[in-house]
Amino acid sequence: MIKGNDPILLTPGPLTTSLETKQAMLRDWGSWDVTFNRMTASICADLVEVIHGGATHVTVPLQGSGTFSVEAALSNLVPRDGKVLVPQNGAYCQRILKILKYLGRAHVALDLPEDRYPTAAMIEEAFAKDPAITHVAQVHCETGTGILNPLAEIGAACARHGKGLIVDAMSSFGAIDIDASAYPIDAVIAASGKCIEGPPGMGFVIARKAVLEKCQGNSHSLAMDLYDQWTYMQKTTQWRFTPPTHVVAAFHSALGQFKAEGGTPARGARYRKNCDTLIAGMQALGFRTFLTPEVQAPVIVTFHAPGDPNYNFKDFYERVKSRGYILYPGKLTQVETFRVGCIGAIDSNEMRNVVSAVAETLKEMNVTKIAPLRAAA
Amino acid sequence: MIKGNDPILLTPGPLTTSLETKQAMLRDWGSWDVTFNRMTASICADLVEVIHGGATHVTVPLQGSGTFSVEAALSNLVPRDGKVLVPQNGAYCQRILKILKYLGRAHVALDLPEDRYPTAAMIEEAFAKDPAITHVAQVHCETGTGILNPLAEIGAACARHGKGLIVDAMSSFGAIDIDASAYPIDAVIAASGKCIEGPPGMGFVIARKAVLEKCQGNSHSLAMDLYDQWTYMQKTTQWRFTPPTHVVAAFHSALGQFKAEGGTPARGARYRKNCDTLIAGMQALGFRTFLTPEVQAPVIVTFHAPGDPNYNFKDFYERVKSRGYILYPGKLTQVETFRVGCIGAIDSNEMRNVVSAVAETLKEMNVTKIAPLRAAA
Ligand SMILES: Cc1ncc(COP(=O)(O)O)c(C=O)c1O
Ligand SMILES: Cc1ncc(COP(=O)(O)O)c(C=O)c1O
Repeated sequence: MIKGNDPILLTPGPLTTSLETKQAMLRDWGSWDVTFNRMTASICADLVEVIHGGATHVTVPLQGSGTFSVEAALSNLVPRDGKVLVPQNGAYCQRILKILKYLGRAHVALDLPEDRYPTAAMIEEAFAKDPAITHVAQVHCETGTGILNPLAEIGAACARHGKGLIVDAMSSFGAIDIDASAYPIDAVIAASGKCIEGPPGMGFVIARKAVLEKCQGNSHSLAMDLYDQWTYMQKTTQWRFTPPTHVVAAFHSALGQFKAEGGTPARGARYRKNCDTLIAGMQALGFRTFLTPEVQAPVIVTFHAPGDPNYNFKDFYERVKSRGYILYPGKLTQVETFRVGCIGAIDSNEMRNVVSAVAETLKEMNVTKIAPLRAAA
Repeated sequence: MIKGNDPILLTPGPLTTSLETKQAMLRDWGSWDVTFNRMTASICADLVEVIHGGATHVTVPLQGSGTFSVEAALSNLVPRDGKVLVPQNGAYCQRILKILKYLGRAHVALDLPEDRYPTAAMIEEAFAKDPAITHVAQVHCETGTGILNPLAEIGAACARHGKGLIVDAMSSFGAIDIDASAYPIDAVIAASGKCIEGPPGMGFVIARKAVLEKCQGNSHSLAMDLYDQWTYMQKTTQWRFTPPTHVVAAFHSALGQFKAEGGTPARGARYRKNCDTLIAGMQALGFRTFLTPEVQAPVIVTFHAPGDPNYNFKDFYERVKSRGYILYPGKLTQVETFRVGCIGAIDSNEMRNVVSAVAETLKEMNVTKIAPLRAAA
């Protein structure tokens, strides 16, 4: 066991949560109990407001990790004869394609380099080429690199052509504004353990009510049947199957803290400051970011690994960890990178401290050539 | 909010956990971190031992509630051209049938009254009638009523006829012995928030390795692909998708306490004493159990509701809750009942106290006719 303070997680979920959030787990709740079910209802109502969807959308919570909710959204909201366009610039876009294969839903990828985002023109070109497309499944912040995809622009393109839009907003929800009142969105998917800063263990799909109402019978799975979960919850106020009660209670607490902080604008600003502080500090050490500043979301930063032969990630990771900070490996296959998250119950002091920890670690490892082996584009 | 001590959950999961278990959630863990992944490995190894399967079985943990693991086991372990016999005497057997319908797996129910269990002779008769049957899916303790189904006998019948056996042991695992070394079992399914006394949020499938090895491509779902979860975990020590880290840590702590208590024999004995104390106390008040003692598992007891016109469950529930005990509604459609769980971090003192709370409540509600309206068989 690690002695002293727990290390700070600079990973994009699980992340560092506040003590108040964790302490909300020090109680056992009955899943049939009205006090517990009021917490669920309050969470669902608050989440809809985060995307300005109070008049049009409903939240359906789902047990499991975020991927379970992504799969549930795709299977429930895309009819069995639908076809999904997936703009693809990273690992989580690829996961959507993999899910669609399992589901047997027709799909087509719009492949992009990992440092480029899809534009409305590209989306519309894809629509023109393939009129069978009924939906777009768009990752908002592609956590594989940290790139922010232009949701408003893509949403407007979908609206112009009457296509459904399903958004994987796992790592952006609560940090970067999503406005379901400005462009039509069929569903926004996220999870408890990301920018709302709860513990992991449940996801949720915020779906357009008028769309969800027509989804009975679409699901490939009982456990992931969102329509069934929604209608059962409306009737009974309860989850269909045992909810992760402690996680729900902590998420409820985290949402309260999120609102008290000032919601998405305030949280986004804190993360932006974290991100700027981190990048400035790392650049001063000689590191280069994989993405250009224009496309960098304030969520997670991909840095090129140092080109020095004395560098290796595992050793680097362990030494930075022993200084109190948990980093994240890169998710790129072509270039060696590592990632540092900017989200969680942390502020720019932590960012300054992790830069110091990295500096000391490099010295200790005798890593002097920080420039990457292969230069980025 | 409730003031003072938290109410004791007499519900069969979520249940009352120890303070030590809950305190294990006061820490954030990185899902990529070796210290965390050692906890996962230790959990998996311990769970296999609970069913005496160390030489033959492996544990595959899965995010989500228990139902997610049941669905995952059925979809992964029953080949697409398999056919499943489901001995059916309650709500959770019916859920298995529902899942098989979603999965499009052939199945046949062996329907029984809710207070009767299947015998080896019945199972063998079903095999004889329908040679297409490849598997039996058996609920061990049917939590809908609390009936204990005779697993060893059914396992032996499956062995004689070379049929696969999949056991939903959600509410019995860790309390009633399951011996995978005495009769062949393809899979045992349970979850964190039952008799191991962890918080809810993850399930697990303990599968025969030789069977699981042949299951690639069976899954209908990416998120519930057990084969993929297993092989990925073997390669990386990590969960494929974000694990419910706090729940995992608490489950790890709960498993340690389970072992310290003396494993299944000790835990089963404590629950048996809880159950006997509860039934004796309630019978002294005039209550009648739905099941006969021979088939009653020491997990949850179904009582007939009092026949008195002054009784109604909601009122009864709220008044008992205000005295510190959370009861559970009945799950029978034909007779009015309620249920009281005997599992969780509680002992026979709690059982004596809940009987007192029930007695006081009945007096307060002016319920004097405790005998049920319709007599049981
Ligand atoms: C954009 C995105 N989508 C999906 C996921 C998958 O979530 P989970 O790991 O909780 O299944 C993640 C996880 O970080 C993510 O960042
Ligand atoms: C026998 C049995 N099977 C399945 C389940 C479903 O588990 P969950 O509610 O965690 O999905 C339960 C829950 O109590 C159960 O008792």
